[in-house]
Amino acid sequence: MTDFDVTNLRRPVLDRRLRLGFVGGGRGGLVGQWHASGARLSNQWDIVAGALSTNPENAKLSARDWLIAPDRSYDDWREMARVEASREDGIDAVAICTPNFSHYEIASCFLKAGIDVICDKPMTTTLADAEHLVEIQRQTGVRLLLSYPYTHHTMVRQAAHMISAGAIGKIRQVQTEYLQEWATGPADPAIKGRAWRQDPSKAGRSSAVGDIGTHAFHLLEYVTGLKTQAVKADFHMCGAAENLEDTAFVTLRFKDDIPGLLHITQAAPGQYCGLRFRIWGEAGGLSWDQEFPEQLRYSPLDQPDQIIHRGQGGGMVPAAQRLAHLPRGLGEALTDAWGNLYSEIAIAIAARRTGSSLEQGAVETSGADDGARGVQFTDLCTDSHEAGGVWQTF
Amino acid sequence: MTDFDVTNLRRPVLDRRLRLGFVGGGRGGLVGQWHASGARLSNQWDIVAGALSTNPENAKLSARDWLIAPDRSYDDWREMARVEASREDGIDAVAICTPNFSHYEIASCFLKAGIDVICDKPMTTTLADAEHLVEIQRQTGVRLLLSYPYTHHTMVRQAAHMISAGAIGKIRQVQTEYLQEWATGPADPAIKGRAWRQDPSKAGRSSAVGDIGTHAFHLLEYVTGLKTQAVKADFHMCGAAENLEDTAFVTLRFKDDIPGLLHITQAAPGQYCGLRFRIWGEAGGLSWDQEFPEQLRYSPLDQPDQIIHRGQGGGMVPAAQRLAHLPRGLGEALTDAWGNLYSEIAIAIAARRTGSSLEQGAVETSGADDGARGVQFTDLCTDSHEAGGVWQTF
Amino acid sequence: MTDFDVTNLRRPVLDRRLRLGFVGGGRGGLVGQWHASGARLSNQWDIVAGALSTNPENAKLSARDWLIAPDRSYDDWREMARVEASREDGIDAVAICTPNFSHYEIASCFLKAGIDVICDKPMTTTLADAEHLVEIQRQTGVRLLLSYPYTHHTMVRQAAHMISAGAIGKIRQVQTEYLQEWATGPADPAIKGRAWRQDPSKAGRSSAVGDIGTHAFHLLEYVTGLKTQAVKADFHMCGAAENLEDTAFVTLRFKDDIPGLLHITQAAPGQYCGLRFRIWGEAGGLSWDQEFPEQLRYSPLDQPDQIIHRGQGGGMVPAAQRLAHLPRGLGEALTDAWGNLYSEIAIAIAARRTGSSLEQGAVETSGADDGARGVQFTDLCTDSHEAGGVWQTF
Amino acid sequence: MTDFDVTNLRRPVLDRRLRLGFVGGGRGGLVGQWHASGARLSNQWDIVAGALSTNPENAKLSARDWLIAPDRSYDDWREMARVEASREDGIDAVAICTPNFSHYEIASCFLKAGIDVICDKPMTTTLADAEHLVEIQRQTGVRLLLSYPYTHHTMVRQAAHMISAGAIGKIRQVQTEYLQEWATGPADPAIKGRAWRQDPSKAGRSSAVGDIGTHAFHLLEYVTGLKTQAVKADFHMCGAAENLEDTAFVTLRFKDDIPGLLHITQAAPGQYCGLRFRIWGEAGGLSWDQEFPEQLRYSPLDQPDQIIHRGQGGGMVPAAQRLAHLPRGLGEALTDAWGNLYSEIAIAIAARRTGSSLEQGAVETSGADDGARGVQFTDLCTDSHEAGGVWQTF
Repeated sequence: MTDFDVTNLRRPVLDRRLRLGFVGGGRGGLVGQWHASGARLSNQWDIVAGALSTNPENAKLSARDWLIAPDRSYDDWREMARVEASREDGIDAVAICTPNFSHYEIASCFLKAGIDVICDKPMTTTLADAEHLVEIQRQTGVRLLLSYPYTHHTMVRQAAHMISAGAIGKIRQVQTEYLQEWATGPADPAIKGRAWRQDPSKAGRSSAVGDIGTHAFHLLEYVTGLKTQAVKADFHMCGAAENLEDTAFVTLRFKDDIPGLLHITQAAPGQYCGLRFRIWGEAGGLSWDQEFPEQLRYSPLDQPDQIIHRGQGGGMVPAAQRLAHLPRGLGEALTDAWGNLYSEIAIAIAARRTGSSLEQGAVETSGADDGARGVQFTDLCTDSHEAGGVWQTF
Repeated sequence: MTDFDVTNLRRPVLDRRLRLGFVGGGRGGLVGQWHASGARLSNQWDIVAGALSTNPENAKLSARDWLIAPDRSYDDWREMARVEASREDGIDAVAICTPNFSHYEIASCFLKAGIDVICDKPMTTTLADAEHLVEIQRQTGVRLLLSYPYTHHTMVRQAAHMISAGAIGKIRQVQTEYLQEWATGPADPAIKGRAWRQDPSKAGRSSAVGDIGTHAFHLLEYVTGLKTQAVKADFHMCGAAENLEDTAFVTLRFKDDIPGLLHITQAAPGQYCGLRFRIWGEAGGLSWDQEFPEQLRYSPLDQPDQIIHRGQGGGMVPAAQRLAHLPRGLGEALTDAWGNLYSEIAIAIAARRTGSSLEQGAVETSGADDGARGVQFTDLCTDSHEAGGVWQTF
Repeated sequence: MTDFDVTNLRRPVLDRRLRLGFVGGGRGGLVGQWHASGARLSNQWDIVAGALSTNPENAKLSARDWLIAPDRSYDDWREMARVEASREDGIDAVAICTPNFSHYEIASCFLKAGIDVICDKPMTTTLADAEHLVEIQRQTGVRLLLSYPYTHHTMVRQAAHMISAGAIGKIRQVQTEYLQEWATGPADPAIKGRAWRQDPSKAGRSSAVGDIGTHAFHLLEYVTGLKTQAVKADFHMCGAAENLEDTAFVTLRFKDDIPGLLHITQAAPGQYCGLRFRIWGEAGGLSWDQEFPEQLRYSPLDQPDQIIHRGQGGGMVPAAQRLAHLPRGLGEALTDAWGNLYSEIAIAIAARRTGSSLEQGAVETSGADDGARGVQFTDLCTDSHEAGGVWQTF
Repeated sequence: MTDFDVTNLRRPVLDRRLRLGFVGGGRGGLVGQWHASGARLSNQWDIVAGALSTNPENAKLSARDWLIAPDRSYDDWREMARVEASREDGIDAVAICTPNFSHYEIASCFLKAGIDVICDKPMTTTLADAEHLVEIQRQTGVRLLLSYPYTHHTMVRQAAHMISAGAIGKIRQVQTEYLQEWATGPADPAIKGRAWRQDPSKAGRSSAVGDIGTHAFHLLEYVTGLKTQAVKADFHMCGAAENLEDTAFVTLRFKDDIPGLLHITQAAPGQYCGLRFRIWGEAGGLSWDQEFPEQLRYSPLDQPDQIIHRGQGGGMVPAAQRLAHLPRGLGEALTDAWGNLYSEIAIAIAARRTGSSLEQGAVETSGADDGARGVQFTDLCTDSHEAGGVWQTF
């Protein structure tokens, strides 16, 4: 049984909004804006503190943008963790939106300070760090949650629940892709994220695989309910990349030798955020495209294709309808998915903080284990590539 | 010249968020949720007061949902106007999300109390009332703004600016439709909005035309920059409607006898919120579909079709890029348009309240004149239908 | 009972191919090519005679293109009718692909010569002429068949049979459009068809309505099974037209006041051959787009949309499957529809010539009555427009 | 210089139609119907002889279907080759539409008899056989042409010529897929082709790769102008297959290490004939989908996407326009591509038979070398799979 009402994701779960802080997210960054939008839209959070930039001027201006009180705008996230942990009205959680290489240190620090963490992917740049975070979380009892927004799309939830209910029978084959174009041409120095993504000292051993491959991998395991047993990968540089891959062809193997194909590139002109999956079972197929997120194509074998549209009724399952806020046809998209993510995370954190229980499935958030799994995936792909494309097992 | 920075729609225009109150919007209503989401997402507003329902119990519960302080949750909107106007920290604006027939009284009351008004469409149910509101606004100097969210979609803005810049040459023909399905079958008594929409004492002389026709009409005039000179209409009942039309075929005439076709129905199974326009000029065509809001199809004569995708660069004009928050391909939709609406309204109201000036085009909001024009459109369509489908001039 | 096997439309119905002649269709014309392609593809016809052009040189070259023997290439269609009627191996039927104004005389002549006629639409330019042809056909017992290729598309057939079987319940509303772009700009003198289409002495009282409106009208009545009771229309010139309409907004009224909307234009940049219908009933909707002819969208009320793909099984009805020659997914389009048209016409004509009987529904061809109805539709639209857009009844 | 006029593909290239015979293609087969439709539609061929089935009764009935004279309907293709070669009016070419394992013997026999051969893919089941055919062709001077219909689609031709003209710059990455669903469930014994496709003694060492993989491979090399240097492959059984693969994940390597991904399956519910390519270069991308063959998506870097529609003008190149027979928007599809294939083959064969010369590029047919390459591709994929997925070089 769940202690508190979770039927409406935009009704605050406590009698106040939760207090959220940010590390990173200042002017010039993109990801922090998405986190902030999700938090605001959810009606579950107030953003009240931040170490928004390592550049003090930027940090100050950014805090002004978000109307964070000057005394809660920090130049240093370590100080932020310390001070916020000691305030009576300190933050309930921190969102980490910094470059990948810094996630580990920041997350450790806040977890140890007793502050729940919402961490952007990839969780860390090494598997050892990821496993440390899992361990720290286990020891402290504080939550580390990952921000994988795509699994908070209504129609992704719908797909996962249809599959677990047997709509396509036993899964026999999976194809996923995440295709972008932004790395095709020479880097624009104004785009900060681009430089560090090609710098092994900051991005880690891989670039595109860690950046978007982890999204696709996580989405795939979430939707299918399958665990990958082995991967093999070839990395390529098809755009202006000079150090790290912008493209990867990955093959996955699930139990019973079920095969999966994963195509990742950031150098495909005309592909913006082409995250798509197609899952085929013995009794039907399901496919979804992030750029047209409101429709799920369901192909029961020997029957007409169905296009299930986000909304109430019309083939929707309750677990997915709960994520839909607008009537069918009035468009929701990624912003709404971020809102759902921040609602579900709020419920999970509020439950922990109040010692309340949540029914199995009350929320579907991703945790440190998922984060570590994404790092392991990236590692194994890189190992495979370096070894000439041979299988690596989880 | 514009006094304050309006380049980033989600950066608060003042050094605080504006204070917003609601009349209507409580549990069971839909439209209020959309207003609230837009306000939250915009990062320009705090929702601090409300007369959220005429049912006191619902009002109370709804205020709890929105974390409105008990002393600012009102049973009566008249009292709300009075008290808020007298508070130092009173609301800067009120959003009116009640059934159509009550808009006039509520809007008048708040305008006279010196509180800016954000009113859902249609502004009133009679043209006389609409004209009174225009006059009250003129006398008081307080702003009455209409919530037409579609004109705050990035790609609608793009279309309007491309047309005014001559991308399709002189407009020669226009086709618009707003197609829904919800009124096909017998009314579900649980859907409150449906009952009053078929009750002439509450909806006014027409139903679907006032409800969604005004959206399409407003969108069309906004995008084309043309003013309709005359309309003729036939009303039909094609679903379960018993009193008022659920369907209308409308013909419009613009200057130089440019013809327009407008198809409105709420009884078309398989059509969810099918708001679409196609505009054809002597040098090209433009079309947009609300259910796929990220793309604009541009057909320059004798050249390949172009699909312009929301984002930066890639054929986008600056006035539209400003409304885009996510990179191309990461989906925005109606929630984001509501966010833009509340950002642009915030800028307009902040300017009035601070006596600041805004450059022409700094924001593109819709005002009482637009609201009155929508009511006149509804009226003229109804007049035309009752007279057997003959032309009525504006 | 049907005397001969009609299960496979590409298996010759007799023990020889039928012999086909052409009037019109020579180099420079388009429509004749489509007829010829259909005849060839059907495997039911040999093209053996022709008066392919009023220009003798063109007639001769064109006969060479089609490998028509020199003695059966005629300069004059009257002579062709006389000679072919007297030959033992004379043509079984003639296809008329000339400008509209000449259809009446040519069709009369061949019917009186005992030769079955396949006539392009519109059948004639006046209703009186059309009625004469109906009468001549009745008196002679010779068949006059109209070439409406769209009703020979597999998925149009599917739609018609689904509707008659009740898939969408009682029809409540209909919307159809036929949108093209070719008349937007100044006429290219090289395009012969364009000049006469704007010449009232050749095209008749209307242009676009007769040219493509009749297609849409015929398609609509075929698919719905409804007979139009009244029409009203406004004509417009939205492109480079100087004499006759290139655009028409037409409203239709069926029994029980069921309304229909028909939009016709040849001046819409970016619209190539946008023939589309959407039909809404009390239990569902159906829509089809000529530019994507392999799919039919079926929207049963309160259930997911279905996309029925041309092929065998998967929701297809037998009467439609019979028209499908390639497996699902291997594309068929207009050429295949013309093939089906010539197959079904071959069966009808072979039955008449051999005195054989065909079961009701064995083929679904369009006859002189349909042709006359198309002419009446054009006439009534023109009458309505000239009278200021008032209703005209059939 | 080209000796004869090849501007209009449906104008017979000689002063008669060429005479075509068939081996295979009788009732119950699919592929022969497609060849026959293409031949008829092209207006370049008469089908006058055949050994349409190894079953004499079927052969006889099938000859009746095609109106082949009884004395030219053969029980044995060896006899057919002998007799037709000796007739003054003997066939100019033979189309071979039998199961794969018999192609070699039949093709050899006809080539040696001096009759040009049109062979369905895969050309043979072993590479040795394929090389023999290349050699026989070289020695005899008779033509062996392969029927790869997709390269005769107008928009595929358009893509190939745009790429060779530099529209997307240097190619950097390629993705192709051919996805079907028919092998998902248990075999229907009525479908003859299915049984032998799972029988290694008839299909060869592989099934899906030879059946549809060769199509995708050939299309890819044709469109890109690149030659594959190496492949690696994993085979899977994802449907009801028991002996041979129904699914393959293939990686290709072109010069300069340009990578390609090829996904083949016949066990993907909801995928009918999903042959698609996406080609990305340093300056843009191009994509095409066989199920929507009239559009080519062209994405020049940093500019709006273009949708190039089949037709005249509007971005089309002359070499592709020549394949388009209907105006833009009036749908062409696979039948039309088969027509083009038979037109281009007719021109090639007529040129050889009359000793005429054809300009480079006058027709774009595929020959024995292409056929052998397809067999080699299949072989190398199978070798790679059997060796655990390692690279195999051409």
